[in-house]
Amino acid sequence: VRLDLALVGFGNVARRFVALLGERAARLEAECGITTRIVAVRTRRHGTAVDPDGIDPSTLLTAPGSLDGLSAVRAPASTADLIRQLAADSELRRLVVVETTVLDVRAGQPAVDHIRAALSSGAHAITANKGPVAFAYRELDQLARSRGVLFRFESAVMDGIPIFNLVRETLPAVRVIAFRGVVNATTNHILSAMEAGEPFERALARMQAEGIAEADPSLDVDGWDAAAKVAALGNVLMDARTTPPRIARRGIAGLDASMVQRARGRGRRVKLVASGSMAGGRFEGRVEPEELAGEDPLARLDGTSNALLLETDLPGRLLVTELDADLTQTAYGLVSDLVAVRRRL
Amino acid sequence: VRLDLALVGFGNVARRFVALLGERAARLEAECGITTRIVAVRTRRHGTAVDPDGIDPSTLLTAPGSLDGLSAVRAPASTADLIRQLAADSELRRLVVVETTVLDVRAGQPAVDHIRAALSSGAHAITANKGPVAFAYRELDQLARSRGVLFRFESAVMDGIPIFNLVRETLPAVRVIAFRGVVNATTNHILSAMEAGEPFERALARMQAEGIAEADPSLDVDGWDAAAKVAALGNVLMDARTTPPRIARRGIAGLDASMVQRARGRGRRVKLVASGSMAGGRFEGRVEPEELAGEDPLARLDGTSNALLLETDLPGRLLVTELDADLTQTAYGLVSDLVAVRRRL
Repeated sequence: VRLDLALVGFGNVARRFVALLGERAARLEAECGITTRIVAVRTRRHGTAVDPDGIDPSTLLTAPGSLDGLSAVRAPASTADLIRQLAADSELRRLVVVETTVLDVRAGQPAVDHIRAALSSGAHAITANKGPVAFAYRELDQLARSRGVLFRFESAVMDGIPIFNLVRETLPAVRVIAFRGVVNATTNHILSAMEAGEPFERALARMQAEGIAEADPSLDVDGWDAAAKVAALGNVLMDARTTPPRIARRGIAGLDASMVQRARGRGRRVKLVASGSMAGGRFEGRVEPEELAGEDPLARLDGTSNALLLETDLPGRLLVTELDADLTQTAYGLVSDLVAVRRRL
Repeated sequence: VRLDLALVGFGNVARRFVALLGERAARLEAECGITTRIVAVRTRRHGTAVDPDGIDPSTLLTAPGSLDGLSAVRAPASTADLIRQLAADSELRRLVVVETTVLDVRAGQPAVDHIRAALSSGAHAITANKGPVAFAYRELDQLARSRGVLFRFESAVMDGIPIFNLVRETLPAVRVIAFRGVVNATTNHILSAMEAGEPFERALARMQAEGIAEADPSLDVDGWDAAAKVAALGNVLMDARTTPPRIARRGIAGLDASMVQRARGRGRRVKLVASGSMAGGRFEGRVEPEELAGEDPLARLDGTSNALLLETDLPGRLLVTELDADLTQTAYGLVSDLVAVRRRL
């Protein structure tokens, strides 16, 4: 089956995704019955390429400057209009919108609007962004069901490591009662450095120089990224109907390195813990630094590892640990979403 | 959809499975579209109950002594004949054989014969036994495919925690390159006791008194159980075409407690590590005590935890940890197998 892809956002994740589709093309066709064709690419600063006959991936990946020259047809200025135009093209019968725009994690935009436009016009939508599930899961899920299309977002938490698919596909008839995790790599790195005695500001500056932390580190160190993941996990796994601003949130900026270091000396670890649970029928989500006992499964993570502990009514507690977080993993999460679309057809 | 169940083996796991089907009946029907009817129970020492109209689960669970009195029809003496007779009954159109007999882990029997009889006569087969996948996965998998039925065995490794389903359902287009794990709870408990200074023999005797170790502890302490799991994982995840006797195997019986304790004192842990990898196109499986560095993800497990590290070509290394191994978890693995049968219909 050929899936026609419209890439909305074309940064590092989308580029790695396109390359991965090429690298894994034979396996995807033989094992999953998928071939792909890229029919549109919308970028923020480098124009738009639209060609219903398909855009050559290697041309796309090596194009210098604007993509406008790769277009066979004129693209509307609005991305939502572009998506609707593509969805209305009867030649493109299995359109999948691949959403990877830069996210405003405090508002979920523009990803939520893009996904809404895709689903409401009958296209499948997959995204590496947390925003849509963190801010509007219930609406988008219902919209997808009502239109008979799929909305998937495996990369939103712990990259390509299956969390949402794990619960959906392999834990039938199970209730997730609570979860606790370390799900933000940047703060985990900074806390590991602080354990070695490096003050917060210096550790942060070093992470920024090494490209681990963003130029604007607030999303990570103030806990916004983790809060969006808590909302996403809560909404999808526990029907929490929450949003990131409703997650109790405290970051690591105020932490004293000597306190972190002393905890380590006593066999304890300070981690930015993201958690969610149901209390009296209401979801309670929380992001805050916690000093964990050495026996705590989350205390054993190194700087580069993320982990999520799911507490279920059966089969008990289940810990999933990601050891090699990188861009390719995030891109793989999108590939697994694409396979989910194929399986649903 | 109603699934008709023939229980072959009726020990603790099967009893917990029957109870769980009752406890989760509403959810299984509403969320998975499954109702169940027990049409046969074959026990080793308490006779056989066969009734195509269904046997009441609570009568079954509380029956003192022999089950023969619950039979509406005569059962053949051979279990394979019984399975074939049930499969030939046109009234039982969705027959699932639930195999939980006591396993000879060195030979895989009688479970392999039971599964073969089920699949070859067109019944689905699910089992909590390692034997069938460890000794005959390739044959049984091909048999199931050729007859259009399902063969599933999620509980064979790490109880109800999804491992086989994880790879099958949530990691499409992925190759497992290698695995390493701590997958035998009894030896893990004994090693934890030895870290605290208790000699092997005394730790083992205490575990036997507490019901953690078997009266015949050889299967666990000599590594046979772990070797069967290595063969099962290799066969299913890596097409290893191996059997337990071909796994290099060393148990923990010869270990010196003071060595284990000293390792712990240096921040290192001795664990019975089960591993598999491909070398030159050939599978190499291994079970042996290893002294692990403190940073090793497997070094961080407590006595009660099992864990499996999967090394994949994408998305890298993935660690799955089971924290609450018990009988109910094993029974849940069978429930998830039953849901897999339903999804395939």
